[in-house]
Amino acid sequence: MKVGVSGASGRMGSLAAKAFSETDDLHLIALYDRYMAGSIAGLSISQDPEALDGCDVILEFSSPTSVMDHLAHWRQFGANVVVGTSGFDAERLAALGELWGNGPGNCLVVPNFSIGGVLMMKMAEMAAKYFKVGEIIEMHHDRKIDAPSGTAIATAARIAKAGGAQQRAVESEEFHGGALGATIDGVSVHSIRMPGLLAHQVVMFGSEGETLSLRHDTMDRNAFLPGILLAVRSVSTQQAPLAVGLESLLGI
Amino acid sequence: MKVGVSGASGRMGSLAAKAFSETDDLHLIALYDRYMAGSIAGLSISQDPEALDGCDVILEFSSPTSVMDHLAHWRQFGANVVVGTSGFDAERLAALGELWGNGPGNCLVVPNFSIGGVLMMKMAEMAAKYFKVGEIIEMHHDRKIDAPSGTAIATAARIAKAGGAQQRAVESEEFHGGALGATIDGVSVHSIRMPGLLAHQVVMFGSEGETLSLRHDTMDRNAFLPGILLAVRSVSTQQAPLAVGLESLLGI
Amino acid sequence: MKVGVSGASGRMGSLAAKAFSETDDLHLIALYDRYMAGSIAGLSISQDPEALDGCDVILEFSSPTSVMDHLAHWRQFGANVVVGTSGFDAERLAALGELWGNGPGNCLVVPNFSIGGVLMMKMAEMAAKYFKVGEIIEMHHDRKIDAPSGTAIATAARIAKAGGAQQRAVESEEFHGGALGATIDGVSVHSIRMPGLLAHQVVMFGSEGETLSLRHDTMDRNAFLPGILLAVRSVSTQQAPLAVGLESLLGI
Amino acid sequence: MKVGVSGASGRMGSLAAKAFSETDDLHLIALYDRYMAGSIAGLSISQDPEALDGCDVILEFSSPTSVMDHLAHWRQFGANVVVGTSGFDAERLAALGELWGNGPGNCLVVPNFSIGGVLMMKMAEMAAKYFKVGEIIEMHHDRKIDAPSGTAIATAARIAKAGGAQQRAVESEEFHGGALGATIDGVSVHSIRMPGLLAHQVVMFGSEGETLSLRHDTMDRNAFLPGILLAVRSVSTQQAPLAVGLESLLGI
Repeated sequence: MKVGVSGASGRMGSLAAKAFSETDDLHLIALYDRYMAGSIAGLSISQDPEALDGCDVILEFSSPTSVMDHLAHWRQFGANVVVGTSGFDAERLAALGELWGNGPGNCLVVPNFSIGGVLMMKMAEMAAKYFKVGEIIEMHHDRKIDAPSGTAIATAARIAKAGGAQQRAVESEEFHGGALGATIDGVSVHSIRMPGLLAHQVVMFGSEGETLSLRHDTMDRNAFLPGILLAVRSVSTQQAPLAVGLESLLGI
Repeated sequence: MKVGVSGASGRMGSLAAKAFSETDDLHLIALYDRYMAGSIAGLSISQDPEALDGCDVILEFSSPTSVMDHLAHWRQFGANVVVGTSGFDAERLAALGELWGNGPGNCLVVPNFSIGGVLMMKMAEMAAKYFKVGEIIEMHHDRKIDAPSGTAIATAARIAKAGGAQQRAVESEEFHGGALGATIDGVSVHSIRMPGLLAHQVVMFGSEGETLSLRHDTMDRNAFLPGILLAVRSVSTQQAPLAVGLESLLGI
Repeated sequence: MKVGVSGASGRMGSLAAKAFSETDDLHLIALYDRYMAGSIAGLSISQDPEALDGCDVILEFSSPTSVMDHLAHWRQFGANVVVGTSGFDAERLAALGELWGNGPGNCLVVPNFSIGGVLMMKMAEMAAKYFKVGEIIEMHHDRKIDAPSGTAIATAARIAKAGGAQQRAVESEEFHGGALGATIDGVSVHSIRMPGLLAHQVVMFGSEGETLSLRHDTMDRNAFLPGILLAVRSVSTQQAPLAVGLESLLGI
Repeated sequence: MKVGVSGASGRMGSLAAKAFSETDDLHLIALYDRYMAGSIAGLSISQDPEALDGCDVILEFSSPTSVMDHLAHWRQFGANVVVGTSGFDAERLAALGELWGNGPGNCLVVPNFSIGGVLMMKMAEMAAKYFKVGEIIEMHHDRKIDAPSGTAIATAARIAKAGGAQQRAVESEEFHGGALGATIDGVSVHSIRMPGLLAHQVVMFGSEGETLSLRHDTMDRNAFLPGILLAVRSVSTQQAPLAVGLESLLGI
């Protein structure tokens, strides 16, 4: 399988390119980055997007501003594409749906490459059906600007959609504003920010006499590699031309 | 639905009987206990097993020594039976299979009525496929005589069967025997015993750069009531005459 | 040592009385409760406060409305008094200071009888000096009406007073109000409420590359007995006529 | 304050040298490494130990085999020395005591530069006096060869010396060897090894109705810098010519 990386000079792109070069089954043939030259595993990073023509799979990790142009370009190559760029809302996904049409060549948009993170969200959805209350505590390093995290917001939405875990027996009175957290889709979310943390989330469920807590800790970016490899190896055989998330690849 | 309880003087039997009496849909009509008289919710506990004749569902919570005789008796009544007595191994289950034959009347054997506990085991099985290593830490009050707990042993078996989570990169050297825990089906299990605890289990999974931890805490026996109610309400409509565990009722 | 209990019909008063009756060194001689009769360990609960005259130590567990009258009464007996009633602010403590004067007979006001809870607060104070950021997560059953808990508010005050643990590197932006918690004395406090919990608090500290987390879990009221026994046994020999908290008795 | 580093090419030595160069009050004047050349912050690493002559404080981070020779050398310079090399047992400390005599110039041997780790051990010692049972769970990456960790062994020794936290109410029966962990000085110790972890320790204490858990997580080596800076800034004013550990500098 011939593989290329777009956004190869970025942190995730370069990490993935290096990982591809160390596998037996993936043949890393081209690197592209609009802005920055360099080389990874002996392969030069080109500033010309045509360098990616001929790839079976292109991993796209460029910025939200350039990603849509890039994807239109890769579509012309007929390549399968895995997209790791963030910020794909319903509108962008609809545009991709039109662009990809009926293949050949598939597109897989992946909001979260961490297999542990994807499992945690699925498990939260499962537990939400059976527990009375669920709350989310997400903890990140103190250079993270936004709160709550995108993962926490997405988890709250899935808990709410699963149809449970939202009723409190007593409406507590907040004597200090914010103590009970943010309420997102009826689910309480708490954000902790301090040095010494990286990226962590706990989803905690309670019913009479028992609690169930799901905790995911990310220590470094290597955590994303198994998910990236799985996506790149599977995109060409996925069922629909356009798919979102690792869930179907994991069979969950 | 007319419901009766066998072993009604025990801690679990009496707790369940009281809960049945507080529902709108379950009609508690008879209580039986071989050894001890008394009454629950205004209903006398009989020492005569015939008292349970006429029940749609019988909840069986007597001791391992008398349970097989009881079940043969309830089978003659044609009742549906939910069995909470522990100690059902392959041999006993085979005997029940013969006894129950093709119905009518179903039998549901439930090793664990805690919905949170059942979910935790299912989730551990799911995670085992995707993580390199899994370990179990179970924590109980210091009056618990056996170690590890039955739930921990069952969880290790399911992790092993799911086919992963067992390889260590380096074989650590134990300078103090026991530090690395017990090895059950290739999974390391650690037992903590101290006052101030009740019944808790953590299943922790790790791969490069991330960990996923599943934690179940049981605070009191009320945690078992939702599972008991689910079993009693569902046993008459289960697909096979004999079934084991809450899993199929939970759709997981 | 002759011991009596005021508020003996309440949950804490009756628990303590029973515990005293089971020791070898404490001689439980009198029980008093303004409202409710009954008996504990074979001793009748009197409705006459004079019943407590002659006690070496009186444990006071009555309500905030009657406690000040009671204490003036016990002062006349010359007894040593341990006060477990909540709600002692600076004004009430000042009134007690005048009432007790120079002894003989001492008074010990104890806001928290849990030795684990007292240690956790002391440890939070210690850690606050050395870590850049500290946050508090308190978790209680969902029938608790107020948020945050009194213990969390007191812990935040002690962290702030210790002079650290309050600076964030980046001011995160709250996209959903409340996500970052309540800010009490510069310390972020998060309150979680769900069934299946009792009373739990985590104080988490972070600096570059490390975190230190202190967690206290209370499972039942028996957790308060060691602190009550320590207070009753020590009050007669404390250094000042009026003291607050178990800290000095614990030597911390 | 003129500062030098011995073992400057190692991971800890180079990290410390770089940190010194970024402070306002420490003047990094010399780097020495027996084996490897290079430069840090524009300063060359010398292979000649005489390069360190003239330093007010020398940070020693070389190997256990060369450290004693180095220290004898730095003693002749009259420098203050902070020693981060591991493996200082009673015999080596006695040798240092003779070497340093009555100053001038002090020596500080530091087994653990993590302030969070030092606090956790001190707190474990405090809690041990008041809780019935304590257990240690240490968790490390799966490339760590030894189990349990040195920190866990040292923590067990301090819990035991504090005189408590060791009695179990019931002697549990281990049906699978190792489940109850290693017993070190009467304290149960459990070692968890998996990828995705770095260095973590939980010390958990239990008494009737409550538990207290102390958890320290180390995410990267930067966690050691505040302790190194504190030691270097304080060694010249410590009370005795030879001291061990950060405890006295932290006032705990």
